[in-house]
Amino acid sequence: MRIELINTGSELLLGFTTNTHLNYIAQKLGERGLRLARQTTVGDDRDEMRAVVNEALHRADVLLVTGGLGPTSDDFTRDVVAELCGRPLQRDETVAAFIAERFRRRGLTMPASVEVQALVPQGATVLPNPNGTAPGLFLTHQNCRVFLLPGPPRELRPMFEEHVLPRLPVIPDKTCRILRTTGLPESLVEQRVAPALANLTGLELGYCARPGEVDVRLIGSPTIVADAEQRARTALAGFIYGTGDDRLEAVIVRELTARGHTLAVAESCTGGLLAHRITNISGSSRVFLAGYVTYSNAAKIQMLGVREATLQHHGAVSEPTCREMAEGARLRSGTDYALAITGIAGPTGGTAEKPVGLVFIGLASARTTEVVRHQLSFDRETFKHVATQLALDLLRRHLTSSTT
Amino acid sequence: MRIELINTGSELLLGFTTNTHLNYIAQKLGERGLRLARQTTVGDDRDEMRAVVNEALHRADVLLVTGGLGPTSDDFTRDVVAELCGRPLQRDETVAAFIAERFRRRGLTMPASVEVQALVPQGATVLPNPNGTAPGLFLTHQNCRVFLLPGPPRELRPMFEEHVLPRLPVIPDKTCRILRTTGLPESLVEQRVAPALANLTGLELGYCARPGEVDVRLIGSPTIVADAEQRARTALAGFIYGTGDDRLEAVIVRELTARGHTLAVAESCTGGLLAHRITNISGSSRVFLAGYVTYSNAAKIQMLGVREATLQHHGAVSEPTCREMAEGARLRSGTDYALAITGIAGPTGGTAEKPVGLVFIGLASARTTEVVRHQLSFDRETFKHVATQLALDLLRRHLTSSTT
Repeated sequence: MRIELINTGSELLLGFTTNTHLNYIAQKLGERGLRLARQTTVGDDRDEMRAVVNEALHRADVLLVTGGLGPTSDDFTRDVVAELCGRPLQRDETVAAFIAERFRRRGLTMPASVEVQALVPQGATVLPNPNGTAPGLFLTHQNCRVFLLPGPPRELRPMFEEHVLPRLPVIPDKTCRILRTTGLPESLVEQRVAPALANLTGLELGYCARPGEVDVRLIGSPTIVADAEQRARTALAGFIYGTGDDRLEAVIVRELTARGHTLAVAESCTGGLLAHRITNISGSSRVFLAGYVTYSNAAKIQMLGVREATLQHHGAVSEPTCREMAEGARLRSGTDYALAITGIAGPTGGTAEKPVGLVFIGLASARTTEVVRHQLSFDRETFKHVATQLALDLLRRHLTSSTT
Repeated sequence: MRIELINTGSELLLGFTTNTHLNYIAQKLGERGLRLARQTTVGDDRDEMRAVVNEALHRADVLLVTGGLGPTSDDFTRDVVAELCGRPLQRDETVAAFIAERFRRRGLTMPASVEVQALVPQGATVLPNPNGTAPGLFLTHQNCRVFLLPGPPRELRPMFEEHVLPRLPVIPDKTCRILRTTGLPESLVEQRVAPALANLTGLELGYCARPGEVDVRLIGSPTIVADAEQRARTALAGFIYGTGDDRLEAVIVRELTARGHTLAVAESCTGGLLAHRITNISGSSRVFLAGYVTYSNAAKIQMLGVREATLQHHGAVSEPTCREMAEGARLRSGTDYALAITGIAGPTGGTAEKPVGLVFIGLASARTTEVVRHQLSFDRETFKHVATQLALDLLRRHLTSSTT
């Protein structure tokens, strides 16, 4: 079953709009064991669109086309597909009445241009669009099932679930499992995983690296994937923090919530990102009480009780300062745990002794305070992200090891 | 000049990763008057990739291929392109030494698999990658200039600017100007701009709305675009905060730096995002001193001196609490200005009287404290972003109006 997706719209090729249809559609297909073979983006250019659609019609078993069904002069997906499939456009009275009614209800005069949306290629099935004026269209051309869907996500999504998915087969014996890891670069993840899974035939193994984390992707029959997951978990013991679309910050909020424990954070170089990531998680207010963004030395002294002598003798980016930040945040907020980060994000501010990318991460608990030192080499924003990733992972390891 | 982009990676076609390369590359091309004719996404499938690259090689004048240059078994872009262009892969000693050095510096043992990244198609130019192990590659095949770039954005972006753009022509009589606005929805931006620019022939006018801001895009000859910009600036007076890829937080840091003024922030519902955005800007440490992420009521009292009576009578999400947060942050940190945000991010926590999306934004200065109320309707993370946008814009308007 070869499925292709064509997204139309000049705004996509000008880079001003992100193509969220690809993510959405790919995930919905994946849940049914289906995959996209190819995705193409084409602008509002009639010749280019004709070429792209024509090629795909001859390759694909299912062709999904989004966008270009509107009433304006740059909407001609309907036209192009009707022409290529040799199906003249005909006015559909039900659709015309539906569109007229939408305008009437909103108290608007219907522009004549909108009438084009009532045109349907001969023999095509109309897919109703309760959230807009442009209906979707479904037709079969030779061996290819063709779906035309409107561009706005809030129109496309309900139509996709209600009218497209039920017309596609389910592949029951194919599943996809994502294991999310942090703490190892991609090449070392593979060095551990690949040999462990080497003799599993029928398994598709993939990796996806992002700053501070690497996904391991297992695709195959449910039996093989379950076996592969077992082996990968052994090979990557301690480095897997979640599955699917888990986020490290969500894991932290979940683990803290389960234990009834609370957290505060003290941030210098990450400037609030650690608190931001944690508070992105709904329900975080039960476990996250306070964040201290102590960018200046004065703020470290006043907000966290870091000693002036410590700053003078060791500097703001040092093990002792990080330790006092973590302990100060924990004591002042009255939480069970506090994380602290101090480092040099760059691009300026580094010295020979303390280069850009140096960062200390501290974790204070009732029993002890642990501080680790890392040397990173990233641009400013990636540095901030990876530093918060290291902090969250330090807490994750502490929480998960303390239960075993 | 026909330019095509191919993005490789199964994670894109499985819907787990958003294709940000398309946006980035399209915008960078647009600034030089260049446009993409087509974009294709293909997974880590050797046959499919071979077909996609082969077709594009015959159509395009410039072919950009991203991803698949890594060390793992699903990386074979280098292989496929070398094969299609009839250029055997050869080991490049400079690249090999560079990769070995990267591992050495990080104190890691280099897996043998990484050596594949030192292979270069015969006659290809190596494009150095300071942020990763996989170099980019440039070669000419028949009439097509082919660029292979690594997948991670932080590796691709600097390489694209340093090594790809200088190898592309500039279209001299075509320029693109982006005016960045905040404070008006897209339809009202258009209502002001479109009539003002109506009689300018040869101007391509576009809009791009993102949460909390709208870009106005002017494309045409330098003369027309300059004229259009003048008119648009009059029509949108007060709403334009920058041009090109300016960011509102960068404007704030610039304006504060120019005045020698300092800032602190107090955040409840935005949980550190406001501090994070400001500290993303290099040089922000000169003006940004402290952030108070007071998620709990206790933290609002203890860290900012909000009165218990205020919280009891008015609640944490109220005008008086926001005022006390802003004033407390300013007094405790000793800054010229303090911004405060308190609201209900959702999806839970709303009431009939104080629904999800309600937010108060406060600005305290030496002379006065201003608090504004907004009712937003977004998901949790978008809500956080738009609330920080409103706070930054409140300060921007204060700073720019106080100088005129």
